[in-house]
Amino acid sequence: MRGTINGSLGAEYQKFQRKLAADFLAWQSAIVSEYARPDQFITQNFDYEWRNYSYGLQPDINQWDASRSLTVAGCDIYHPSAQDLTGREIAMGGAIARSLKKDNYLVLETEAQGNHGWLPYPNQLYLQAFSHLASGANSVMYWHWHSIHNAIESYWKGVLSHNLQENATYREACRIGADFCKYGSHLANLRKSCPVAFVLNNEALTALQWFPIHESLTYNDVFRWLFDAFYEINVECDILSENDIDLFSQYEILVTPALYSVSDTLVSALDAYVRNGGHLISTFRTAFADKMLKIYHDDQPHGLTEVFGMTYDQFTNGVNVGLKDCRFSFGDDRADAESAAPNTVRYWMELLRPATARTLASYDHSQWGQYAALTQNQYGKGSATYLGCYFEDKALLRQLLCSLCGQAQIEMPKETYPLIVRKGVNGLDRKILYYFNYSDTPRTVTYHGKPAVLLLRGKNGAGSAAADAPRAKVPSGSLPPDCPTVTEGEVLTLQDWDLAVLEILP
Amino acid sequence: MRGTINGSLGAEYQKFQRKLAADFLAWQSAIVSEYARPDQFITQNFDYEWRNYSYGLQPDINQWDASRSLTVAGCDIYHPSAQDLTGREIAMGGAIARSLKKDNYLVLETEAQGNHGWLPYPNQLYLQAFSHLASGANSVMYWHWHSIHNAIESYWKGVLSHNLQENATYREACRIGADFCKYGSHLANLRKSCPVAFVLNNEALTALQWFPIHESLTYNDVFRWLFDAFYEINVECDILSENDIDLFSQYEILVTPALYSVSDTLVSALDAYVRNGGHLISTFRTAFADKMLKIYHDDQPHGLTEVFGMTYDQFTNGVNVGLKDCRFSFGDDRADAESAAPNTVRYWMELLRPATARTLASYDHSQWGQYAALTQNQYGKGSATYLGCYFEDKALLRQLLCSLCGQAQIEMPKETYPLIVRKGVNGLDRKILYYFNYSDTPRTVTYHGKPAVLLLRGKNGAGSAAADAPRAKVPSGSLPPDCPTVTEGEVLTLQDWDLAVLEILP
Amino acid sequence: MRGTINGSLGAEYQKFQRKLAADFLAWQSAIVSEYARPDQFITQNFDYEWRNYSYGLQPDINQWDASRSLTVAGCDIYHPSAQDLTGREIAMGGAIARSLKKDNYLVLETEAQGNHGWLPYPNQLYLQAFSHLASGANSVMYWHWHSIHNAIESYWKGVLSHNLQENATYREACRIGADFCKYGSHLANLRKSCPVAFVLNNEALTALQWFPIHESLTYNDVFRWLFDAFYEINVECDILSENDIDLFSQYEILVTPALYSVSDTLVSALDAYVRNGGHLISTFRTAFADKMLKIYHDDQPHGLTEVFGMTYDQFTNGVNVGLKDCRFSFGDDRADAESAAPNTVRYWMELLRPATARTLASYDHSQWGQYAALTQNQYGKGSATYLGCYFEDKALLRQLLCSLCGQAQIEMPKETYPLIVRKGVNGLDRKILYYFNYSDTPRTVTYHGKPAVLLLRGKNGAGSAAADAPRAKVPSGSLPPDCPTVTEGEVLTLQDWDLAVLEILP
Repeated sequence: MRGTINGSLGAEYQKFQRKLAADFLAWQSAIVSEYARPDQFITQNFDYEWRNYSYGLQPDINQWDASRSLTVAGCDIYHPSAQDLTGREIAMGGAIARSLKKDNYLVLETEAQGNHGWLPYPNQLYLQAFSHLASGANSVMYWHWHSIHNAIESYWKGVLSHNLQENATYREACRIGADFCKYGSHLANLRKSCPVAFVLNNEALTALQWFPIHESLTYNDVFRWLFDAFYEINVECDILSENDIDLFSQYEILVTPALYSVSDTLVSALDAYVRNGGHLISTFRTAFADKMLKIYHDDQPHGLTEVFGMTYDQFTNGVNVGLKDCRFSFGDDRADAESAAPNTVRYWMELLRPATARTLASYDHSQWGQYAALTQNQYGKGSATYLGCYFEDKALLRQLLCSLCGQAQIEMPKETYPLIVRKGVNGLDRKILYYFNYSDTPRTVTYHGKPAVLLLRGKNGAGSAAADAPRAKVPSGSLPPDCPTVTEGEVLTLQDWDLAVLEILP
Repeated sequence: MRGTINGSLGAEYQKFQRKLAADFLAWQSAIVSEYARPDQFITQNFDYEWRNYSYGLQPDINQWDASRSLTVAGCDIYHPSAQDLTGREIAMGGAIARSLKKDNYLVLETEAQGNHGWLPYPNQLYLQAFSHLASGANSVMYWHWHSIHNAIESYWKGVLSHNLQENATYREACRIGADFCKYGSHLANLRKSCPVAFVLNNEALTALQWFPIHESLTYNDVFRWLFDAFYEINVECDILSENDIDLFSQYEILVTPALYSVSDTLVSALDAYVRNGGHLISTFRTAFADKMLKIYHDDQPHGLTEVFGMTYDQFTNGVNVGLKDCRFSFGDDRADAESAAPNTVRYWMELLRPATARTLASYDHSQWGQYAALTQNQYGKGSATYLGCYFEDKALLRQLLCSLCGQAQIEMPKETYPLIVRKGVNGLDRKILYYFNYSDTPRTVTYHGKPAVLLLRGKNGAGSAAADAPRAKVPSGSLPPDCPTVTEGEVLTLQDWDLAVLEILP
Repeated sequence: MRGTINGSLGAEYQKFQRKLAADFLAWQSAIVSEYARPDQFITQNFDYEWRNYSYGLQPDINQWDASRSLTVAGCDIYHPSAQDLTGREIAMGGAIARSLKKDNYLVLETEAQGNHGWLPYPNQLYLQAFSHLASGANSVMYWHWHSIHNAIESYWKGVLSHNLQENATYREACRIGADFCKYGSHLANLRKSCPVAFVLNNEALTALQWFPIHESLTYNDVFRWLFDAFYEINVECDILSENDIDLFSQYEILVTPALYSVSDTLVSALDAYVRNGGHLISTFRTAFADKMLKIYHDDQPHGLTEVFGMTYDQFTNGVNVGLKDCRFSFGDDRADAESAAPNTVRYWMELLRPATARTLASYDHSQWGQYAALTQNQYGKGSATYLGCYFEDKALLRQLLCSLCGQAQIEMPKETYPLIVRKGVNGLDRKILYYFNYSDTPRTVTYHGKPAVLLLRGKNGAGSAAADAPRAKVPSGSLPPDCPTVTEGEVLTLQDWDLAVLEILP
């Protein structure tokens, strides 16, 4: 990545490389379009930052620019499985794929038996497939049909093992296919409506490679820190590019994780968003440099000091620093304690000086105790919350996000990870509700809402169609005759690594 | 090692490189042979996989092929000393050297004061020298006479230090030389007769570099895992190449550690070996690919599913997995416990499905508990044991190997490491018995057998000849007049890092 | 650094490279001298071995040779700050800079806000500035005025942050400037008079890169091991090059840490130094090779076996080895215990065999217990102490050095690190006494001596001049009217990271 000591120049060259990739795809797409039939479409299996699995925003291409050449967004999503399966990458990857065309997308590649060590536990392949649908995917395709017998990817195993015989993974894939066939008309083309959106950009990602926050905290780490916390409290999030300014007002909350590089256009849009009633959450390193990565020479965060009602001009690493005087809470008293999280601050801390903002938490430290760590400002009709540091206490982060969601009047289910709740509206204009149990032990959920139909569950009961069951095509709008009804207050038990899908009656 | 993403191609090129090295030696040997006198011989100091010491089979040459050019096998063996001296590398290196010409061999190089940190404790040089003889060596030569005063190997120290004066190491080398002189006719040309043989091949070693089991578990690790366990229970092992099929029937037990690459010829020979009464022990990754490293597309282990009475088509890493329901034991009840070894399985586990085999142990895991981890099958007149996973509990491994040796009616001494027992027959057709104490504390052994002569012991008593004692040549067959006799039940005390050598009377 | 396997050749090439650098500076200096006015001087900001901060002697230039071209010695000194600030690097770097011209020096660069994570705590910049003066610096200049907005060093922050406004660091720099202005005539041109000198050379540093003691123990590590221990007991040390033989007799104690490469000239000078009453402290690896790094082939330490009254010809790593029978003590009984420091010996241990020397400590080890680890010899009118091993117990090392300083009748203050005491004589021929508190908690010191004037203290009281206070020029010799007097037995309280400076009345 080096070749120059001028980080701004290096990052600009990488931006040029990203443009080359997008231009190439546009050229190819134009050629294909000349020959494509009206019923044919163009897609591309975009991937993600690769840390031996799909981790975050892809550094080497601007997928929003590149997607202009596509008819349908596509992606490949890979992730640890077995004891390490969480569904996080499916949610994160899906949110990015969904953002490309603001529409459903295709999972063009995902793991079958996967890389060594990822062999799915029984029912995990099933759980994964429906998690993709719950994120808005319209397909789940596997890498690959059978394990290959030679060369580099012999141990990225397919649906079939090397002996080309039926195996446990094949039989589970058959069950998935049968249920897609039986219930697909109720599950495909899911329309998502998320209350929260993250604003990401490639420039910030690249910038923080050249000017790192810390070797252990990249741009995508900050993105995932917040995205995963929302995932765990079952608040669904969209992703927006910095060019999606027109869409800002659709969301209760906008989140900018380490959005280091910002244009004045974006800064104005964020200002307007808050002024008009939006709730902005930004972290450290937001709005520090321009689009050429030249550091702004006015007060930080650039152009947003009024919005956040604070500024800072010094920062350091967090060493032996906690958070104290936490003035937010949700549901329990945990975060009100004097010293909520000893030594939780790591890697980066800005010494915030509030003007109109109130302090949500201060640094618990012998020398930096007079500075704010987290602030919130009322600005216009909205609010702007600033996280001046990274902290490790994830329970505290969930507490903070719950508190902010409460302020923004976002509805949150009672369930938290490993119970995952996903929602959407299907092609029949009915609400679909997914419950996933991402754990090794059975768990219960209590249904709240209008009467619903239990479309399917993975391990026992409806939906466990055997691979060889008759593959009846379900006519749009009709329901399989064997689907039971679920009513307010009913308790459903989810087996380990299992799921339930409800269609709420009109 | 890279240069291609095609592992099979890369491995084939490495095979070609190994052939070049063997061809070169053959060419050199032919030239030398033209000029050599009848009493002159050709040898070569082959070494081992180098991990800052001699670790396992050498990857860069096929020593069996290359040894055809030699009159006498030779080797260099280096290993940690001081608190880390175990004798393992001497036994392992000796077994490989002995396998090259199926005869005695020369230790052409071994450490004197050694690499920094290996300075031998008092008597360790003596212990090492006789350990080489006990493995079948006919010489012990040191690197090197005096420590050098310049350039790269100044701190691979010689017998003499840089001041070129007598020192402790020199005086111990003198004592070794005097005792070689005095007792050599009783100790040289030792004929070994081992009940167990390992079958190794270079293709499997190379294959598992390109297609690793796990970054922490190479081919030589699996070899050493089993070889060292046999060493610790004092069952002596030979090494065979895959071309030594004719010799298979001489052994009670054959062991194939991770023998990934096999020809159908070898598979048939293993089948015949078991059918005719042999006891085969194979580990995970055995018989998976052909000689070109193309993975076999029938049921694994290729060609041996009937022999092992089981098959498998899925495998994964061992994470939080133990062994349960262990159905083998030897001497104590340890391995009969319900969950013998919690979380001991690591790196690789195959999900074994027994047909005719009985399960020796299953996986203790929430999802994989129905699969077998270790199996044993009666096939023809013999048995075939399969280890489907690597596990860390070495006491359990020794238990398993003791149990299998018991089944194969192999005689095992009561002593276990750090007391090492080695046997052989000398040039006078008398049995020689070595006891070594590889530890920092004195230990006792109880002699069982026919009356014997205590030829020498290192620290006190016979054999502690001073460097300047008269170097009397002992005529073949005669014994030094001062050697005491040892009879059934007699207890010998071995000092720390000491030894005793017995010649059993006819 | 490689390119040859001949370490002596490689090191010789590096010596040639060092000469090129010195020659270049001499050439440049000669050109500048032609044009310089009489009141202009030539300097150079020499730095140190860089381990992300200034660590030890610079490997890439011989600063003593190169300084011949300079009028005034200069340096840049960077070091961790915040919770990691100790003052060690300021003392070490100052001692080297002072040695170049045997005179005061300029700190041409040091950190302002520093590298990320080094943001100074309140008053640390002030503490650092006066620590430089206490070491003999005549200036403190910062890298750099304002934080830069682009390219590589954007986050090596200046006095001002990127917003170019006044900040906490700027205000503290102003306070430093005001106090330099007010008290400078009493503090500049400090003349040091240290009782101890280290003898360093570049050849030993380079040699031990090619022929390492241990990967975790370089030449500069051994230097710092001893230098830092003297720093902690407040015994001030000079640095000498190997060519400063004429100055040896000025010091009570000479120290040679791992002085691997020695000429016979130097050996003779060390012999003469001890014979004439000096106290020599040498460590392992001293006097082992000549100036071309050829190992001497006589008894080690070369030419000094009579001086030290011992020799050795074997050495090894320290593993599970302690020090026993410690025959030195100072102030308490700690080091008299039977086994003073279990397992403290690491990396390197020489097996010392005393002749006329007495054993100060032996190895606590099952096999090496008969060898000495630390020895001391009376030779002529002086003494020679040899440390045959590196040990980790720093309290024991301080104990040993206190004991040796006591023997050499060196006066030691009661205070130890984190209370640091520095002394000197100012341009008015008055003694200056500095007290520094390098810690996060207030501490007290008790003044002993003739009546003195409390020139300044950092946080409260005299010397805390506000940045905008009138910058009165203090005439030489006069004292500010507001300076209180301090008398024998008076207790001064130093706040956290604070200091006090006394001028002792004539």
